Amino acid sequence: MPSEAEAPSSRGGERETARIEAFSDGVYAFAITLLALELHVPHFSEGKGELSARWLCQALAAEWPSYLAFAASFLTILVTWTHHHALFRLVQTSSRRLQFANGLLLLLTTTISFPTAVVAEYLQTPAAPAAAMFYVGQQVLLASAFLVLLHVATGPGTLSPEAPPESVRRMKRSYALGPWLYAATMAVAFFSPKLAIAITTGLWVFWAFVPP
Amino acid sequence: MPSEAEAPSSRGGERETARIEAFSDGVYAFAITLLALELHVPHFSEGKGELSARWLCQALAAEWPSYLAFAASFLTILVTWTHHHALFRLVQTSSRRLQFANGLLLLLTTTISFPTAVVAEYLQTPAAPAAAMFYVGQQVLLASAFLVLLHVATGPGTLSPEAPPESVRRMKRSYALGPWLYAATMAVAFFSPKLAIAITTGLWVFWAFVPP
Amino acid sequence: MPSEAEAPSSRGGERETARIEAFSDGVYAFAITLLALELHVPHFSEGKGELSARWLCQALAAEWPSYLAFAASFLTILVTWTHHHALFRLVQTSSRRLQFANGLLLLLTTTISFPTAVVAEYLQTPAAPAAAMFYVGQQVLLASAFLVLLHVATGPGTLSPEAPPESVRRMKRSYALGPWLYAATMAVAFFSPKLAIAITTGLWVFWAFVPP
Amino acid sequence: MPSEAEAPSSRGGERETARIEAFSDGVYAFAITLLALELHVPHFSEGKGELSARWLCQALAAEWPSYLAFAASFLTILVTWTHHHALFRLVQTSSRRLQFANGLLLLLTTTISFPTAVVAEYLQTPAAPAAAMFYVGQQVLLASAFLVLLHVATGPGTLSPEAPPESVRRMKRSYALGPWLYAATMAVAFFSPKLAIAITTGLWVFWAFVPP
Repeated sequence: MPSEAEAPSSRGGERETARIEAFSDGVYAFAITLLALELHVPHFSEGKGELSARWLCQALAAEWPSYLAFAASFLTILVTWTHHHALFRLVQTSSRRLQFANGLLLLLTTTISFPTAVVAEYLQTPAAPAAAMFYVGQQVLLASAFLVLLHVATGPGTLSPEAPPESVRRMKRSYALGPWLYAATMAVAFFSPKLAIAITTGLWVFWAFVPP
Repeated sequence: MPSEAEAPSSRGGERETARIEAFSDGVYAFAITLLALELHVPHFSEGKGELSARWLCQALAAEWPSYLAFAASFLTILVTWTHHHALFRLVQTSSRRLQFANGLLLLLTTTISFPTAVVAEYLQTPAAPAAAMFYVGQQVLLASAFLVLLHVATGPGTLSPEAPPESVRRMKRSYALGPWLYAATMAVAFFSPKLAIAITTGLWVFWAFVPP
Repeated sequence: MPSEAEAPSSRGGERETARIEAFSDGVYAFAITLLALELHVPHFSEGKGELSARWLCQALAAEWPSYLAFAASFLTILVTWTHHHALFRLVQTSSRRLQFANGLLLLLTTTISFPTAVVAEYLQTPAAPAAAMFYVGQQVLLASAFLVLLHVATGPGTLSPEAPPESVRRMKRSYALGPWLYAATMAVAFFSPKLAIAITTGLWVFWAFVPP
Repeated sequence: MPSEAEAPSSRGGERETARIEAFSDGVYAFAITLLALELHVPHFSEGKGELSARWLCQALAAEWPSYLAFAASFLTILVTWTHHHALFRLVQTSSRRLQFANGLLLLLTTTISFPTAVVAEYLQTPAAPAAAMFYVGQQVLLASAFLVLLHVATGPGTLSPEAPPESVRRMKRSYALGPWLYAATMAVAFFSPKLAIAITTGLWVFWAFVPP
């Protein structure tokens, strides 16, 4: 809580950061909840055999690719949120630049479900390489947006003086790797779409465990 | 409000918990609001008799199963939120483990509408046992996720020193029961789908009144 | 900010109220944003004359009932939020009862779009009386939920000692009127659906200006 | 943090502003996330040639107008949020008038996707002038709502005594221009729809960089 002696701009800066985080939390929460709309009740129609408990079990089991896509998107957004969180703990004051770097990251977060749906529809078809490259390409952009946001967040006047320099250095190192790792995975996608998707998901599991 | 003397990590811990709660509140709020999209205006078409006030009354009344499913899902998410709330009052600091245990719970919360819709479509058909087991199975997973989150939340370094030990013991006892109760209900669903749904809803009314 | 000497339960109470408000704000924000999904782009098809600027102007103008329904629903949710807001300023601590009274109110808020859509579809048909009674009936329930929430919120142990007694008395007086006013409007709906809708909307404008 | 000596109304005022901001942040977050629902997976059907990676690349590339519309709407809502943010930093206490001026602004924000979709559907048709005028007309209303909100927010009893007078003057000057700039663009839309859309988007880029 700022003392009376503090300048209004610094007080405003504190509130701005709180609102950026609240706004971002809203976007993450909504993006992660919307994913559930992609789960569809299997519909029975004549000519599909007999409507029985066995049929429903098989119909629900046959939807495993959409469960997997749901879980992968959920994990991606959750891990992204975790990193957004860790990143904003370093920030002291806000600025227009921070708001727009954050906005770019959110734009790429809310659109994650789009390439995921493209992959879900085309992974078993001859168009799989294009679908996988589109999916991994989005991750290249997402990782780049994180790098931009980290750069802005750790700039002078924005970085909190209490932020441990060791954390900042570690994040800078690991975020700088991101775009290159995904770009390399994009090349893999051209030859083996499924391997590329597996690597991308594995990277998210890795980001989940990397120290923030 | 932390004094200047406090370590940055403890301050960060406080903010992290606030953001986990804000993010979770967002997910609960959207998940509960999205349920209303399942209520559909009855459409009149030729061959359904005469378009009259009486017809509309009957058409609206005939939708009672979807009102019931809506109310049951609403109650489930509201009670879940109440428990999430009580659980986080025990937490002092945050951690990666807490974020992911919480994420698993949210994943199972946002997908509640899916098995509910399956039950709504198949409860009156021969596939009812499979639908009811799918619905109750989701509750087994949800109750297990609560148990995992409670375990992580009450671990050393996470539990608030102000948390009343009696509350913690009581929650541990009642949460440990959850998965077994639902697993038993799943067995019931095989023989009597409607009874299993009634028991599940009854359990939510019970959780609503159990002291937190 | 509670001093160290304060009991944990009182600190918890403060946080609980904050989370009820945050959760409710999320529900209101989402419910009000979802309304925009009811606005549809007019589609041109062969046999509708020539595709011209004049045609598009007329097609957009012809959608005035849905603009009106949107504005009315938006006003309803906004005024409801304003009252929710004023009501929670009176509250000091939280309780299970408050959470469920609030949950009932939110349930009736998230479903406002359903009777609104019924009215929009049937107001120009012979089924109009049933549609209007359904719409006003929802408002009877909503006003009753406000009365229940006010009763719980102003109970001993929940009401803030700082709440001005005059405000509490005034709210109790005006909220007790609500259900009766809407019930009377429901009777009007049987004879004149459009008048009933106009009265209901007029009442919301009235609630908007009534001192909180 | 108010001292015990402060009047309850001032404390309430503080909480009201926090809830208006939280509610508005929720609306902005959902409005911006809902935009992603407009991105559709291209569907392959017989008679479209061969299903290949090349076909999918072309199909995804052919959707550029919807990517552009998405990015433009995202930018509009993000810049609007930035200004909402800057505006509320000037506010000390809340009032009914502020809540309704803010509500009007939110109404016009949540409906941005509607004229955007109209433009996306009709920009390449003879109806383009009507579509563009409808789109720019919405912006006239939005800019007017900002002017109304600024007027209410900077009124006596609402404006924070800490708000820098220079900022207030600058915002008043630039916000007063808004409606006129968009009205002039609306006239342009009658003759050149595409130029009008370009000017409107250019103005948002301008608002993004104008000092708050």
